[in-house]
Amino acid sequence: MNQKRIQDYGIKIGRLPSGPRNKITDVAGVQVGHSTIHEGNHHTGVTVILPGPDNAFSLKYTAASYIHNGFGKSCGLVQIGELGTLETPIALTNTLNTGLVWDALVQYTIDRCQADNVPVYSINPVVGECNDCQINDILHRAVTEAHVREAISGADADFAEGDVGAGTGTVCYGLKGGIGSASRVVEICGRPYTIGVLVQSNFGSLIDFTLNGMPAGEMILAASKEGMPKPAPDRGSIMTILATDLPVSCRQLRRIIRRTGVGIARTGAYTGHGSGEVMIGFTTENRIPADSGLISQTIIPEGELNPVFQAAAEAACEAILNSMVCARTIAGLKGEMYYSLAEFMHLLTR
Amino acid sequence: MNQKRIQDYGIKIGRLPSGPRNKITDVAGVQVGHSTIHEGNHHTGVTVILPGPDNAFSLKYTAASYIHNGFGKSCGLVQIGELGTLETPIALTNTLNTGLVWDALVQYTIDRCQADNVPVYSINPVVGECNDCQINDILHRAVTEAHVREAISGADADFAEGDVGAGTGTVCYGLKGGIGSASRVVEICGRPYTIGVLVQSNFGSLIDFTLNGMPAGEMILAASKEGMPKPAPDRGSIMTILATDLPVSCRQLRRIIRRTGVGIARTGAYTGHGSGEVMIGFTTENRIPADSGLISQTIIPEGELNPVFQAAAEAACEAILNSMVCARTIAGLKGEMYYSLAEFMHLLTR
Amino acid sequence: MNQKRIQDYGIKIGRLPSGPRNKITDVAGVQVGHSTIHEGNHHTGVTVILPGPDNAFSLKYTAASYIHNGFGKSCGLVQIGELGTLETPIALTNTLNTGLVWDALVQYTIDRCQADNVPVYSINPVVGECNDCQINDILHRAVTEAHVREAISGADADFAEGDVGAGTGTVCYGLKGGIGSASRVVEICGRPYTIGVLVQSNFGSLIDFTLNGMPAGEMILAASKEGMPKPAPDRGSIMTILATDLPVSCRQLRRIIRRTGVGIARTGAYTGHGSGEVMIGFTTENRIPADSGLISQTIIPEGELNPVFQAAAEAACEAILNSMVCARTIAGLKGEMYYSLAEFMHLLTR
Amino acid sequence: MNQKRIQDYGIKIGRLPSGPRNKITDVAGVQVGHSTIHEGNHHTGVTVILPGPDNAFSLKYTAASYIHNGFGKSCGLVQIGELGTLETPIALTNTLNTGLVWDALVQYTIDRCQADNVPVYSINPVVGECNDCQINDILHRAVTEAHVREAISGADADFAEGDVGAGTGTVCYGLKGGIGSASRVVEICGRPYTIGVLVQSNFGSLIDFTLNGMPAGEMILAASKEGMPKPAPDRGSIMTILATDLPVSCRQLRRIIRRTGVGIARTGAYTGHGSGEVMIGFTTENRIPADSGLISQTIIPEGELNPVFQAAAEAACEAILNSMVCARTIAGLKGEMYYSLAEFMHLLTR
Repeated sequence: MNQKRIQDYGIKIGRLPSGPRNKITDVAGVQVGHSTIHEGNHHTGVTVILPGPDNAFSLKYTAASYIHNGFGKSCGLVQIGELGTLETPIALTNTLNTGLVWDALVQYTIDRCQADNVPVYSINPVVGECNDCQINDILHRAVTEAHVREAISGADADFAEGDVGAGTGTVCYGLKGGIGSASRVVEICGRPYTIGVLVQSNFGSLIDFTLNGMPAGEMILAASKEGMPKPAPDRGSIMTILATDLPVSCRQLRRIIRRTGVGIARTGAYTGHGSGEVMIGFTTENRIPADSGLISQTIIPEGELNPVFQAAAEAACEAILNSMVCARTIAGLKGEMYYSLAEFMHLLTR
Repeated sequence: MNQKRIQDYGIKIGRLPSGPRNKITDVAGVQVGHSTIHEGNHHTGVTVILPGPDNAFSLKYTAASYIHNGFGKSCGLVQIGELGTLETPIALTNTLNTGLVWDALVQYTIDRCQADNVPVYSINPVVGECNDCQINDILHRAVTEAHVREAISGADADFAEGDVGAGTGTVCYGLKGGIGSASRVVEICGRPYTIGVLVQSNFGSLIDFTLNGMPAGEMILAASKEGMPKPAPDRGSIMTILATDLPVSCRQLRRIIRRTGVGIARTGAYTGHGSGEVMIGFTTENRIPADSGLISQTIIPEGELNPVFQAAAEAACEAILNSMVCARTIAGLKGEMYYSLAEFMHLLTR
Repeated sequence: MNQKRIQDYGIKIGRLPSGPRNKITDVAGVQVGHSTIHEGNHHTGVTVILPGPDNAFSLKYTAASYIHNGFGKSCGLVQIGELGTLETPIALTNTLNTGLVWDALVQYTIDRCQADNVPVYSINPVVGECNDCQINDILHRAVTEAHVREAISGADADFAEGDVGAGTGTVCYGLKGGIGSASRVVEICGRPYTIGVLVQSNFGSLIDFTLNGMPAGEMILAASKEGMPKPAPDRGSIMTILATDLPVSCRQLRRIIRRTGVGIARTGAYTGHGSGEVMIGFTTENRIPADSGLISQTIIPEGELNPVFQAAAEAACEAILNSMVCARTIAGLKGEMYYSLAEFMHLLTR
Repeated sequence: MNQKRIQDYGIKIGRLPSGPRNKITDVAGVQVGHSTIHEGNHHTGVTVILPGPDNAFSLKYTAASYIHNGFGKSCGLVQIGELGTLETPIALTNTLNTGLVWDALVQYTIDRCQADNVPVYSINPVVGECNDCQINDILHRAVTEAHVREAISGADADFAEGDVGAGTGTVCYGLKGGIGSASRVVEICGRPYTIGVLVQSNFGSLIDFTLNGMPAGEMILAASKEGMPKPAPDRGSIMTILATDLPVSCRQLRRIIRRTGVGIARTGAYTGHGSGEVMIGFTTENRIPADSGLISQTIIPEGELNPVFQAAAEAACEAILNSMVCARTIAGLKGEMYYSLAEFMHLLTR
């Protein structure tokens, strides 16, 4: 992809180095795919995160979830909490499409397991969502099983950010939100490991927006453009997916994904009442076979987690900024304009 | 309904009096409806619990949920936990139909709100599920929006128990499970209040089954009938819905619904690994307007909760027994027989 | 010890075999010690559970806690929840002595670490408690550091049950409560493992008391003895400590200890409002060094947990009964009599 | 008090107005007292927050707690979580003194209740802690019951910040930490309400320290002073106490106190592994009588919470800065210097 990202503006978030793509797919095996819909008043879509190339149902991923603010409809978190495992791709979409996307993940998993000769009776699809009703006619659920299949079959280590897939109709800090990603590399016990984050950004009031400590929202408001929406309360949501190749337990993963909330806070929001903020994390290490004898796992010592926490915070912050700066300006359903952050970067980088 | 229930066998669970119907619908306003499917290998359905006759979305219910064992796919619990409110009917179905039933509740709520001129952009459908794959071809999701509409439009204060609706294909303690209900009346601060419970029973190993302290499972095993399935580990699930007209907060409701776990334990199971056990409760008091000024609530003093806890435990225990004794014998997909508890009651009441 | 326990009355709880002592100390390395106080109106004490012979602070135990009902003052649970480790002995005492016993565990740990040349700056003592104010003058905290040291230095694989240590002044189901223990042996992946439980019992109303399905409380009430206290609401508390040598993670341990609640329910109580019910568990496998490189762990597959759950439920149920049948009759501070269950066993074993 | 606070340097945190004192005691009735110890190697103390002038035990406060990072030893949170009430003053102290301070709060409550003729058998003291072992000889617990009494009897609406009470020996961002406070006033449903925060700051690495978006830590490191400690990982802790006069439920309070984490994040830390971060909140409205009939409560509509969340974040951020700028430079036990932030403010306000 050839998109201009926040680092391309000379802005460096935090102190840790990024991976080669600076995306969640720097974690080996992880792939991301989108299906984007623009049809009439439908501007929405679906984004899938595949934890790896093989069948997640037969060799499950160690996983964790965390609810930062529970005004949201995400599905699949109950079982992740109990069993500490992920057994399907993760799909992101618009709020009211959650059910149909859930059903599509079920069909995908059945088909995959039948092809692999893996018995399947119970499946825990994981679906996150944001409410894109300012740009998308959300009441008529536009995302169908075909879109989910398209997103899965097109998933790749390289993928677009901004107004694509589940980010097509989202709004962030009164500007255009979307899908964004970033990664960090840390050294633990003498070996490098990668922490990657992907967000679906749909939260915040413009006045609160902070860019690396700068009161960017106030500066943008001062230079207001035509048709910008009136200041609105912080609502919407942000979905945060974290992937890593660190050998960690689900308890440690839960501690790690909580730190992405620090990255969100560094963009200025105070986690509004209406903002469903959900974090989901998985590691590509410590896979869990569906059937087996005793399972051997390796975990890092707790005292080594600090740089990982820092990595999670930094990558989440940068992923949000990438989601905004890569998204293109679009008009809302009522004619108001949701501008790309890119249109204001000249103000913020002088 | 004219079904023979556990009390009709002379068995009394606990010490508190029941309401007039001895069902969850003894709580004024609560209605229950089923849609039952028998088509080819599909033996499944959907059961809906309507908290009241008016629009739940515009005047929300104080609610709580509790996850006793999280090997399950229930949806809607995250938002109940954060906001303490219920804004749709509760639907129960088979595991893999959760997504389509979720979507059907969305459509129902949109239609209802449009009819009532209530703006709607975000809806939190609540769906519980059990895995009925021993009797039902679960991989092909048989429950459609039409079934959900049928269940809602047929909802009534009187309703059938046993192998109906979401209980059509469930298995409990190796016998036929299903939908069951019971209620209790307690006096708090000088006034009677009702606690009603409805369960979808799909859990337990026969050897563990206890009826009012009697080792009923062992007695049934000793008198084994033709075609009974081989002893299997405790898996499956139980969904427990509790309704009340008590003035309580969502925190108090959460304490109350946890006690239904005591009722489950009294039927003998130890909450197996594979058993998704989820409790959802609501009160018809302390409704929450979608838009308002300061809200007045009345809550009972904490020290008065003991009889309510007892009521929750007793009603849950009896609801399970009703679900089993009202369900009729049916063959499984592999030809094994899931007998009705009714066929063994002569052994247990001598 | 030569106490008559519930099995000695010919009563068998559940189906799994017990370990050789049928106590928590069947888990190799675990030791239990008491300090018992009878001075004036003080009838109380402290019981300690040592997870093993070596320094728990430098080689921590994988641990979990679970709050079944949080009307209680137990300390140390926050850190167990975050880190999944236990680093001190567990002490049980009366409610208002929690602070002084906490401080005594700090001093013990400092002394132990200084003797072992282990640096120590932060210690997480774990203290559980029950309110013994019906028998003990609880307002004047009788348990001092000397008592804690006595309990620790006297800890042994063999130990007394009933009205000793932290069970000296407790009341259970209106009869005399106390310390009780039991164990179960299960075979997982071809090897035997032990699950041991110890309880401090101080809960329940006599009318609810059930012994192996029998309405024992009602039978005892019918045969009422002189000076028995008037029926009182279910309050008090029960502390449940579970030890095992199973290779499990802290997440799995948390699932296991939750099932001890089933064992409590089988004795008849519905977990009253005022009953602080806290479970704490640890395994002697998967120790966590304070400082190290990558840590290797072995965990059992999730699907093997069912017999472990059953073991936890059975051992908790039997431990409660042992706590009651081993405790001797004592008068309360107001002259009422708290009888030993042993005095009624002839009624219950005919 | 006549201390130079962060606003006195011309620095404004956030957008909402402060109360008259800009302290937690802007909430009517709240009082704060300290006892400060400097004896040999002991540089520590205790700080108490009294929620109001009357007996908290007989008329309890609606309260909530939240564990942001559970590497900590705070006591009393279990019961707050279950019952949603606070019944004693809140005390803050050093980690290893938690037990003795807990015991002192018990004695204080017994004395108070006996003076007021209120029966008391069970008390839930609330104690928070930070580890001040860099400046204080923590292994010998210096804080006694007399210090707790001194702090309580000296509690006042006006109180000192910085290196006093429980903040005497704390370290924040490699500089001197301490006690700090701030408040915000919001208008809800046409009436002004106050949100006050008090922190005990003991966390963070200097390199991460951010002041209103400025990389203050890096600037201070560049201008390093003699004897500053070497860069250390983010550990320590922060205790955050929030008081308000808003009519809210305990569920709403829990949502509010979670937002103080945003304020912490805005000072730059990413919540390190070793940082026990605990939030406790109470409201002076919706008091809960110990014995009563039905209880009437008023709560604000959920949609009005956004400015309250903002207030919590802003006040927490400013309270941390006040704790640092009011604290005076002190040497650590190993001779290293913990400088006051005040000594660097000329660098940060040019």
